Amino acid sequence: MRLPRLLAPRTIVSAHCDLPCGVYDPAQARIEAESVKAISEKYQANPDPEFRTRAILIKEQRAELVKHHLWVLWTDYFKPQHFEKYPQLHQLFNEATKLAGASGAKGSVDPAVADKLLAKIEEISKIFWETKQA
Amino acid sequence: MRLPRLLAPRTIVSAHCDLPCGVYDPAQARIEAESVKAISEKYQANPDPEFRTRAILIKEQRAELVKHHLWVLWTDYFKPQHFEKYPQLHQLFNEATKLAGASGAKGSVDPAVADKLLAKIEEISKIFWETKQA
Amino acid sequence: MRLPRLLAPRTIVSAHCDLPCGVYDPAQARIEAESVKAISEKYQANPDPEFRTRAILIKEQRAELVKHHLWVLWTDYFKPQHFEKYPQLHQLFNEATKLAGASGAKGSVDPAVADKLLAKIEEISKIFWETKQA
Amino acid sequence: MRLPRLLAPRTIVSAHCDLPCGVYDPAQARIEAESVKAISEKYQANPDPEFRTRAILIKEQRAELVKHHLWVLWTDYFKPQHFEKYPQLHQLFNEATKLAGASGAKGSVDPAVADKLLAKIEEISKIFWETKQA
Amino acid sequence: MRLPRLLAPRTIVSAHCDLPCGVYDPAQARIEAESVKAISEKYQANPDPEFRTRAILIKEQRAELVKHHLWVLWTDYFKPQHFEKYPQLHQLFNEATKLAGASGAKGSVDPAVADKLLAKIEEISKIFWETKQA
Amino acid sequence: MRLPRLLAPRTIVSAHCDLPCGVYDPAQARIEAESVKAISEKYQANPDPEFRTRAILIKEQRAELVKHHLWVLWTDYFKPQHFEKYPQLHQLFNEATKLAGASGAKGSVDPAVADKLLAKIEEISKIFWETKQA
Repeated sequence: MRLPRLLAPRTIVSAHCDLPCGVYDPAQARIEAESVKAISEKYQANPDPEFRTRAILIKEQRAELVKHHLWVLWTDYFKPQHFEKYPQLHQLFNEATKLAGASGAKGSVDPAVADKLLAKIEEISKIFWETKQA
Repeated sequence: MRLPRLLAPRTIVSAHCDLPCGVYDPAQARIEAESVKAISEKYQANPDPEFRTRAILIKEQRAELVKHHLWVLWTDYFKPQHFEKYPQLHQLFNEATKLAGASGAKGSVDPAVADKLLAKIEEISKIFWETKQA
Repeated sequence: MRLPRLLAPRTIVSAHCDLPCGVYDPAQARIEAESVKAISEKYQANPDPEFRTRAILIKEQRAELVKHHLWVLWTDYFKPQHFEKYPQLHQLFNEATKLAGASGAKGSVDPAVADKLLAKIEEISKIFWETKQA
Repeated sequence: MRLPRLLAPRTIVSAHCDLPCGVYDPAQARIEAESVKAISEKYQANPDPEFRTRAILIKEQRAELVKHHLWVLWTDYFKPQHFEKYPQLHQLFNEATKLAGASGAKGSVDPAVADKLLAKIEEISKIFWETKQA
Repeated sequence: MRLPRLLAPRTIVSAHCDLPCGVYDPAQARIEAESVKAISEKYQANPDPEFRTRAILIKEQRAELVKHHLWVLWTDYFKPQHFEKYPQLHQLFNEATKLAGASGAKGSVDPAVADKLLAKIEEISKIFWETKQA
Repeated sequence: MRLPRLLAPRTIVSAHCDLPCGVYDPAQARIEAESVKAISEKYQANPDPEFRTRAILIKEQRAELVKHHLWVLWTDYFKPQHFEKYPQLHQLFNEATKLAGASGAKGSVDPAVADKLLAKIEEISKIFWETKQA
């Protein structure tokens, strides 16, 4: 069961700009990955060649955004002390961005690939929120 | 007090692509508006001219993204029946996008302007989530 | 009464930037919509799969530009007094941008869909030029 | 002999995409150059440093679009027979795009520089319309 | 035989920004053209329709970058005295950018077309480096 | 002394697209970093406020490209076996991209900061070319 939206945390914001504004959130990567998954599902359900061409080109864009948002977190949000505390973090980001690329979500229209990507983003997200509460 | 992240709704995803993938969420506009606010605050606190030039150019980009995400919701997510049920919705979006533009967040470095923009996005967000639960 | 377009001053230029520079013109949206139509016609006339893939991806870009130029007019050019005088204007823009999106020109390779989009842009254009002469 | 512009067919639209869709018009470059001029005028009239920073960054974008639209005409619209008939055409485009760049409209906030750019675009435009009627 | 990388000239840098920073190099166009060629070869070797759709859309982007980098050299790097000394230079650039467009690398998946484009870029490159050493 | 260009390796090409085309080269990041350095030097030499605003905004773009090209190498070119052989590689990329960001080249107009960035890219480049010859 889903919590009513009004009870959802209001102060959570997401991360991105390199002033830096200090606003970061793995949700940005996750949202694009959800889109990749939804596109893959629609692709599987619709054999129309025009629709499929559009699906592939839009999926390419959303997957690129997944990579971008993850790269921003890895470079701009995470600091040396985080990488010391979470020694797996480099590899996690490397695997996640690879999963969004040609060997993953870009190169596949299988929703299961998008699921793997989402799981990897969730791992990153957990660490992210731990560091925010530290 | 903020709810622990792990209790936050997991299935909420955000909206954007025009396949359409069907994933929409006003959080995308809100996040960029939060960034606009944070940039304005940092601008006020830092008189360095190089920093201020960077702040203005980055704020311009984030405010443009606010407009874009709101336009996408207005055109792609909301359907005729929504506009019938919420007759104020057109004006709300028009005011919100104006508040993100030259007469609002783009043309100002006052965090209070960003707050007005955030309040307008919150109004849209409430209606959005009502329609999702309808 | 509106002057026929052919008598309109030659120095009229088109609209877009959010300084704002004050230069606006619905021709920008119309031009991209004409491109969408021409692409659709070429698509129908050419069964080559490589050509068709290129046509779909380029049409997607031009249709996105139609949406963008219309959104700019709706938010940046039109003021509250215009929406009072032309109460249909919000809906007109909403329909026009929907016609440029997935349920219209993006999702179709039928030139007739592009024609509908062009007709809607023409309606907006008439109102635009009336307000310029008011 | 070229028909006066005011008598030109209303359905002429503008040029850009590299399918190609076949739609070309120097108005696209001219519109952006008009914007550059309007921005320069507003810059001169407004000493506010925040406004001026925004003016410079937006002018940079519009001037880049002038260059892009001119380059597209030069490469995509004009054919070898045009360059034979108008041997000055290469130099005209080279000068026009230089006038939109660092040594011209990008590097200056003087409206007179934008006027020179507009005059050069007008020269190109005359040749363009002659070739369309040939 | 290929020279070891460590012996390659270190101080060669490439050209692009319109401050201008003064850094120019035809390698930027060449690299994108090499990518176009590699994509065409992979396209020929892989009949999978999803792969081919991705190949065409990515090739379109890289070919657009070839055009852009060449346009930048033509407008921003080369000066009137260069065009006097190399009177074929305008036509060379015009042919090269056409070869990157719809009538060349964009409109074809034949690696031989990419080879022609690369040869044209090499001609430009030779002249470029001659002018640098003059 | 610089080797004549004609002796420079011809077959070296650069890396980027995520088909993937297989073309990778750290030169792309280096070139943008050279531009960042040249812009910083020109900034120091020119107190004109309009020039300086342009310098900062263009430097921001070039530094973003440095980050992007490095991220592409880190995710798309380097494979698990490379990270095993060069265990410092993750940290090297993380430091290099941080040096291109707000705490480095974006946030500074000191050419010495650009030099540090260039040195870090050179470290990456050495490893890259070792893996290519392996």
